[in-house]
Amino acid sequence: MATGLTETAQIRDWILREAAVLPGDFLRVDGFLNHRVDPAFVALAGAALARAFRGSEVTCVFTAEAAGNVIAYETARQLGAAALYAKKGAARTMARALTCRIRSPTKGVEQDLCASADYLRPGERVLVVDDFLHQGTTSAALGAMVGEAGARLVGFGFVIEKRPSGGRKALEPFGVPIVSLAVVDRMDPATGEIVFAPG
Amino acid sequence: MATGLTETAQIRDWILREAAVLPGDFLRVDGFLNHRVDPAFVALAGAALARAFRGSEVTCVFTAEAAGNVIAYETARQLGAAALYAKKGAARTMARALTCRIRSPTKGVEQDLCASADYLRPGERVLVVDDFLHQGTTSAALGAMVGEAGARLVGFGFVIEKRPSGGRKALEPFGVPIVSLAVVDRMDPATGEIVFAPG
Repeated sequence: MATGLTETAQIRDWILREAAVLPGDFLRVDGFLNHRVDPAFVALAGAALARAFRGSEVTCVFTAEAAGNVIAYETARQLGAAALYAKKGAARTMARALTCRIRSPTKGVEQDLCASADYLRPGERVLVVDDFLHQGTTSAALGAMVGEAGARLVGFGFVIEKRPSGGRKALEPFGVPIVSLAVVDRMDPATGEIVFAPG
Repeated sequence: MATGLTETAQIRDWILREAAVLPGDFLRVDGFLNHRVDPAFVALAGAALARAFRGSEVTCVFTAEAAGNVIAYETARQLGAAALYAKKGAARTMARALTCRIRSPTKGVEQDLCASADYLRPGERVLVVDDFLHQGTTSAALGAMVGEAGARLVGFGFVIEKRPSGGRKALEPFGVPIVSLAVVDRMDPATGEIVFAPG
């Protein structure tokens, strides 16, 4: 799916300039995306994701707390939609919780993702977003919760996809567009090289 | 400290209209602020906090993940600053972690807050923000981390302050401005009434 060339080119340049490749297939982006956050980068990524799904009449941008929060917020803001954050762990104060148990591939622990059915309603048009598409575990769980809520999933959007991790395969059964702004084909911790997939 | 009257009046009206008072001194704002998020509300709150600290030359807006993330992001975006999120729990992939142990008054558990000294640098001018000022435990910990990093704390900013919880007292020793957009004086779960402090 086409996204604005200028925005995605800027995003890839930013990653090449500021991300670090660490051992263990780890792409360190915590200086601008998920620990210290540069609003200029997030606004650019949100604009590109909003542009990709502008025609999909999105009412709700759904992510899992906490890494996806600002990307979901910025995408929602630019689409005129709401943002919804699935919470991790038991939701003691949550009314009418929809729950999905996942096993985090990065942390190796099982945890529940919860969202209130009060805020994920039948008839909504939902875009699932996250900072990374890795194995797709979390996003597939969010996609399943959208179905459980009786809402309509319209797509998946990611800032960075690590293609070798195979997350796209896990999401293809949903039959909706999957947009990644930067698809990393391979990276080398010895040289720091990052190679994007063409397109 | 004066904030834009129109913005704060709109914020208080929004809270009166959409928040729910639950037993146990709990103000439910998860329909627009911390579970399902309305970007119009967050942008308004960010604008009001940015206006209050416009003259403070803020370089970094600091919060604790995850509830404060979008407020910090929006305030930072409108100030032209970066946002920084202290993470909860041990930070295995974090370089040069600054750590502070806190006891959550709402969850009753101890946990570590961590931020990388790579991203909280000497010479920075730091504004600590959060969605709620309750007992002030988390914000005081963030304020202490700013000092530990050799950075300069310029203020605290909150969307909602629950005055009876006494958090302001915990933050006054830092000697910087404390701005809350809506100060709740009392609330009644029986009637749903919310009374704001004057001003």
